[in-house]
Amino acid sequence: MSDLKTKVFLDESDIPTHWYNIVADLPTPPAPHLHPGTQQPLSPDDMTALFPMGLIEQEAATERWIEIPPEVQEIYRLWRPSPLHRARRLEKALGTTARIYYKYEGESPVGSHKTNSAVPQAFYNKVAGKKRLTTETGAGQWGAALAFATQVFGLDCDVFQVRNTYEGKPYRRLLMQVFGASVTPSPSMTTAAGRALNERFPGTTGSLGMAISEAIELAVQDPDASYALGSVLNHVCLHQTIIGQEALKQLAVFGEDVPDYLFACAGGGSNLAGISFPFVRQNLLGHANVKIVACEPAAAPSLTQGEFRYDFGDSSNMTPLLKMYTLGNAFVPDPVHAGGLRYHGMAPLVSHCYHEGLIGAIAVKQREAFEAGTLFARAEGIVPASESSHAIAGAVRQAKQAAEDGTSPVILIGVSGSGQLDLPAFAEYAAGDMLDA
Amino acid sequence: MSDLKTKVFLDESDIPTHWYNIVADLPTPPAPHLHPGTQQPLSPDDMTALFPMGLIEQEAATERWIEIPPEVQEIYRLWRPSPLHRARRLEKALGTTARIYYKYEGESPVGSHKTNSAVPQAFYNKVAGKKRLTTETGAGQWGAALAFATQVFGLDCDVFQVRNTYEGKPYRRLLMQVFGASVTPSPSMTTAAGRALNERFPGTTGSLGMAISEAIELAVQDPDASYALGSVLNHVCLHQTIIGQEALKQLAVFGEDVPDYLFACAGGGSNLAGISFPFVRQNLLGHANVKIVACEPAAAPSLTQGEFRYDFGDSSNMTPLLKMYTLGNAFVPDPVHAGGLRYHGMAPLVSHCYHEGLIGAIAVKQREAFEAGTLFARAEGIVPASESSHAIAGAVRQAKQAAEDGTSPVILIGVSGSGQLDLPAFAEYAAGDMLDA
Repeated sequence: MSDLKTKVFLDESDIPTHWYNIVADLPTPPAPHLHPGTQQPLSPDDMTALFPMGLIEQEAATERWIEIPPEVQEIYRLWRPSPLHRARRLEKALGTTARIYYKYEGESPVGSHKTNSAVPQAFYNKVAGKKRLTTETGAGQWGAALAFATQVFGLDCDVFQVRNTYEGKPYRRLLMQVFGASVTPSPSMTTAAGRALNERFPGTTGSLGMAISEAIELAVQDPDASYALGSVLNHVCLHQTIIGQEALKQLAVFGEDVPDYLFACAGGGSNLAGISFPFVRQNLLGHANVKIVACEPAAAPSLTQGEFRYDFGDSSNMTPLLKMYTLGNAFVPDPVHAGGLRYHGMAPLVSHCYHEGLIGAIAVKQREAFEAGTLFARAEGIVPASESSHAIAGAVRQAKQAAEDGTSPVILIGVSGSGQLDLPAFAEYAAGDMLDA
Repeated sequence: MSDLKTKVFLDESDIPTHWYNIVADLPTPPAPHLHPGTQQPLSPDDMTALFPMGLIEQEAATERWIEIPPEVQEIYRLWRPSPLHRARRLEKALGTTARIYYKYEGESPVGSHKTNSAVPQAFYNKVAGKKRLTTETGAGQWGAALAFATQVFGLDCDVFQVRNTYEGKPYRRLLMQVFGASVTPSPSMTTAAGRALNERFPGTTGSLGMAISEAIELAVQDPDASYALGSVLNHVCLHQTIIGQEALKQLAVFGEDVPDYLFACAGGGSNLAGISFPFVRQNLLGHANVKIVACEPAAAPSLTQGEFRYDFGDSSNMTPLLKMYTLGNAFVPDPVHAGGLRYHGMAPLVSHCYHEGLIGAIAVKQREAFEAGTLFARAEGIVPASESSHAIAGAVRQAKQAAEDGTSPVILIGVSGSGQLDLPAFAEYAAGDMLDA
């Protein structure tokens, strides 16, 4: 049977013991975050109103490997290592000569990669004596992940969810509530930022940037509270690097060296960073030549259409200034189904890598994404998240190209989560009713 | 880390190559199915209008091990082996001295154990030249499993879904539709059986027995169609035995021999049969003394409250007569959330084992089930299916007893599926609005 091997789990003892910090290997240093008032590089003290010291240190860390605390490793073991699959049936369905693999993060407690960062974030806040975390969520994956992680460490959790998904996709809100979190649709009337945004954009369906403003406002008003961000920042990208580290080991079990192509969806950027940074390292070491492709939604194409400049992470100019590809912090994406990708900017570390040519990018419209996601579901028996379907679409393009060219590249897809809670969107696609944004 | 081992996957090469047929080991033979007209034991020919010969042979098989066809093994490899977890955090939450393990079937293509039988059923029908399968579904797990399996083998699929869940829990219906199945709420007005049932029980929310009648009617009218049943029959129980076979191997990796207690939910009985029959064998061989406990819903307590006699499997007297514990085929359970357990009877093989004292049973009300399921979700990071929560409730009772007694039993739970699509029910429980049936 081994010649038909379909997936590799690894043993729990193969879960990485350290996160990988790409800053240590970058040929040029990324630009520092700036204080929004002074425009000077942010000092650790500037961040203490929002984050605990453990995370502030990681945000500015320069060492290559950062140890994962045992308390975090214990929780990771509930679902990690995540499996790496060979997509044999997808290959056959596409008639491709490519060998396609996918790393699947959908078996986490909330069905996505987000718990990889939620757990350490809750842990460092617990160590710092915090009692409560506030956050934003788009499709609900991050909010659910933080809801799970906070109850693990005995913290309260307040989530502002983009109104579009709060109303249209109630299941992830229910999941947050099962884990004991309090959830408010954003923009709300319970914060000054929310009231101002509702006035400025009457009837808005919300955005991640708006929800971030509300969550930050709540956190700075309460000394026992911190804010937690599910993507974008360096420490979030850092936590996600366990994905790529596991994938490297698992490809070796399949007898593969490194992939020729790596496709991953990119909204705020943490999923892309997590699976790709260990492969960027292989490229920088001269061990490989992996072509890494960020798959962003055509509705929020920060890398392919944005500018590389300092901008705010939120819509109300409350965050530090981040050097990133951005569509401008007033940009409100169309209400596409991939709520987790509806963000105006891109993680500074991902932006830096893109600017330096270490990572490429494509934009994918949602009908192409759902077509690929449906094909994947039927072939592989896994309904992928709306977000992940963008990465699958990129891989499908490449696999078809390989069939035309008669080449046999190795393609790795980062499937960041499960689409079981995105089923209404798949049904809308099947019915032909989907906006092609 | 090995002393903290949390889960065991096994390798794909450890997926069982044979199904286990308990009939070969039973001290007394189970009663045969009877022809509803002649009251004589059913001959293979009597079943050809409904089933392909491959399954008819398995229904009456007496050999101990039945080889799993390579085409089926190939599909099993998409998600099997399923993991066995040590529930360390649940143990801590309960303050128990018991060691608790759970076998989790929720990572299948549809989030439950049902695909274990749907795939071989679709395969044997394909081999027999059938073009279409008809079936019933309660909560939707079986319908979704057959929808997945039929498209794998290029067959059409018509599903009658109990109206209660068709309307109240649309996500699994959407999943069936993503896999290309046609879904009709039952009782419908499109079959004679459905029309008669709607007349007899005006405004009924439906039941599995009713939906079975409709699916059978459709199948017998079309020579290219077969009927497929998701539980109850011998061949379905047979297919599910890969669960228990894997669990036996995985417990050994944890350094355990066999469990002292095994809890599994029981509606039609296939999940219970699948995880428990390999352990019944260990008991019969004198290798173990596992106390096996079927956890049925108080709303449909066929084992604990029913009679052991011949009865029809459906509501309209269309199936063969099956010797089983039954509440009578006119029984319509309260509309509890665990739709997969709302059945008037119990698999003949499970009923026989219960009657012979090889298996025990308890009835669990749904509030106790959801309390246990919520505790499990927060501790283990897996929201269990409503059905599976009944088994968790049984295990929680035993674990608390162990804490009182100061004993350290090994408890194995069969967690048959994921509750991600049952989230509204968990929210209803959390809000205190749940009927305690």
